[in-house]
Amino acid sequence: MKAKGQLHNLQLRPHFKTHQSLKIGSWFRDEGIDKITVSSMKMAKYFASDGWKDITLAFPLIPQWIKELKDFDSNININILIDSNEVAFLLKNLPGRNIYNVFVKVDCGYNRAGVSVLDHNSILELAKIIQSNNRCIFKGVLIHQGDNYKIHDINTLQKAYHKDMHNLYHLMKRLKECYPSAICSWGDTPSCTVVNDFGVIDEIRPGNFIFYDLMQYASGICTVIDIAIVVKAIVASVYPDAGKMLLHCGAVHLSKERLNDPESLSGYGIITKIDNNKRGDMIQGLKIESLSQEHGVVKGEKALVREFKPGDFVGIVPVHSCLTADILKEYTTTKGEKISMMPLGGIKN
Amino acid sequence: MKAKGQLHNLQLRPHFKTHQSLKIGSWFRDEGIDKITVSSMKMAKYFASDGWKDITLAFPLIPQWIKELKDFDSNININILIDSNEVAFLLKNLPGRNIYNVFVKVDCGYNRAGVSVLDHNSILELAKIIQSNNRCIFKGVLIHQGDNYKIHDINTLQKAYHKDMHNLYHLMKRLKECYPSAICSWGDTPSCTVVNDFGVIDEIRPGNFIFYDLMQYASGICTVIDIAIVVKAIVASVYPDAGKMLLHCGAVHLSKERLNDPESLSGYGIITKIDNNKRGDMIQGLKIESLSQEHGVVKGEKALVREFKPGDFVGIVPVHSCLTADILKEYTTTKGEKISMMPLGGIKN
Repeated sequence: MKAKGQLHNLQLRPHFKTHQSLKIGSWFRDEGIDKITVSSMKMAKYFASDGWKDITLAFPLIPQWIKELKDFDSNININILIDSNEVAFLLKNLPGRNIYNVFVKVDCGYNRAGVSVLDHNSILELAKIIQSNNRCIFKGVLIHQGDNYKIHDINTLQKAYHKDMHNLYHLMKRLKECYPSAICSWGDTPSCTVVNDFGVIDEIRPGNFIFYDLMQYASGICTVIDIAIVVKAIVASVYPDAGKMLLHCGAVHLSKERLNDPESLSGYGIITKIDNNKRGDMIQGLKIESLSQEHGVVKGEKALVREFKPGDFVGIVPVHSCLTADILKEYTTTKGEKISMMPLGGIKN
Repeated sequence: MKAKGQLHNLQLRPHFKTHQSLKIGSWFRDEGIDKITVSSMKMAKYFASDGWKDITLAFPLIPQWIKELKDFDSNININILIDSNEVAFLLKNLPGRNIYNVFVKVDCGYNRAGVSVLDHNSILELAKIIQSNNRCIFKGVLIHQGDNYKIHDINTLQKAYHKDMHNLYHLMKRLKECYPSAICSWGDTPSCTVVNDFGVIDEIRPGNFIFYDLMQYASGICTVIDIAIVVKAIVASVYPDAGKMLLHCGAVHLSKERLNDPESLSGYGIITKIDNNKRGDMIQGLKIESLSQEHGVVKGEKALVREFKPGDFVGIVPVHSCLTADILKEYTTTKGEKISMMPLGGIKN
């Protein structure tokens, strides 16, 4: 992703909500990355505590977060995000003496958050409110095209992407007439992985690519080899006559994210061998059929099930690595090193 | 549930995996409860640390857990569970000098774990292996009929329950010929809530009833008034023209458990007012349409959406209280008191 950013002259600002870990963050730093993205105030503070000094809080600014901005040292640059006039006007209450870069959150059709990419007037109005505040600089627009996670083949993704680029081209043209330095910050791992024409995009914020997962594999975005996370699960019982095994690995370990398409990968994850702390080969023919709180039921051919015994370990490649990591809150590297994540405590925002 | 146990002469051994909290556990103790159920070794140790002395570890014993049993004081009674000859024979390695009560996990058709209720011979064989070990006492059979969570009306549940009771009657009759003191320990909140004829059942282990949730409400097991848990969520943005609001409340707060039936309750939770730390009335006409990692998208009538502004709070009655509590790891009472849960760290088993 770094090489891609360099090739296309893009600022890479990876999203750290996937791994939520200072140690893994340090691997990015070792690669020369110094700008990051987070999804909550708590996460911004967590990474700021480890010396990150340029952080985009990529969630529409919640009014209660405004006073919390005073908790950051003045040499830390927190880029914030708004998508309503109401919150734009609240920025008059920004604490301290810092100048804040402010993005307008733009919606390219995902319909989750942001102002429509077609609604140039509302975006310009927000830019004007931001610029009229002497504590703020209108930095540009920020998009997360989450629809790209729902697409199951690369051609369809590229077509959808080109439509988005068309709309963004017209928006950026209009914006730059008034704000020549406005930038376009673009999100998601699927498009950042597969496209090679970044048009008006100045900055990319992929996050999931640090691990990838089964969703990305099912969409053709990555191979299984690329998936850098696996849940090590323990076999509690084996019922060969029923072609069934019980894992102590349920929704509290994997989340309930489920893949429904394609049929061959449907379910809650694919099962692999585990060689100490390393993921081994996929085990064809075993499937996680159901998950309850801490139980996972695996079905497969009787002969295959008979190869396992209680106490054995299997790996599970998760459907959605972000949710699985968030639930398990700790990593072990292939060398056995424990890696901690953002601790719990306080409101999870 | 306590009154019901007393009325029907049942041992109440509530499952603590729903709340996972010493403080909430103490409320049970105040009611005279002294026997509990947990779902992992870690959870058994957590509650043992607070003075609980009679704990059933209601998950088929994982071989790696056997050596961990030495970590309990000798005055703590850990009841264990097996469902295979293989693990039954491993009990010869039980540490220390304690005598362990051992249950055979029996499957009444849920098909998750356990030996079929119809397979009397295998159950008797397991009982024999247990009794041949001078460190073990065959305590009886333990059932969790998880199918009762999938049933959407009480009549169907009661019919299914009576079929299970028929099968259990024949099993217990056969078992008691050899083991007159064998008991039948029965699970789930739905049946324990609605049935009034406990037949051969000696012990009940409901857990979810401490909070109930939307699943139970949808099945007619409880009313909304009975649901004692609500997620306090913050409104980040309001888009009245689109009839939409954005909450900073996604899959990492609520889990991805989704209700599909009935249509009127489908989705990821129902929205209520919040009055300080108390749940207010349900807000008819607002619906959580989608959840991603930390975003929740709420749809509703424009006029209704227009009543909200960024920074407001709403309540969300969760679909599955066990998973939501497990993710959020902290409670606040209606009086504002913080209540902690089992801490993270170590393997979640």
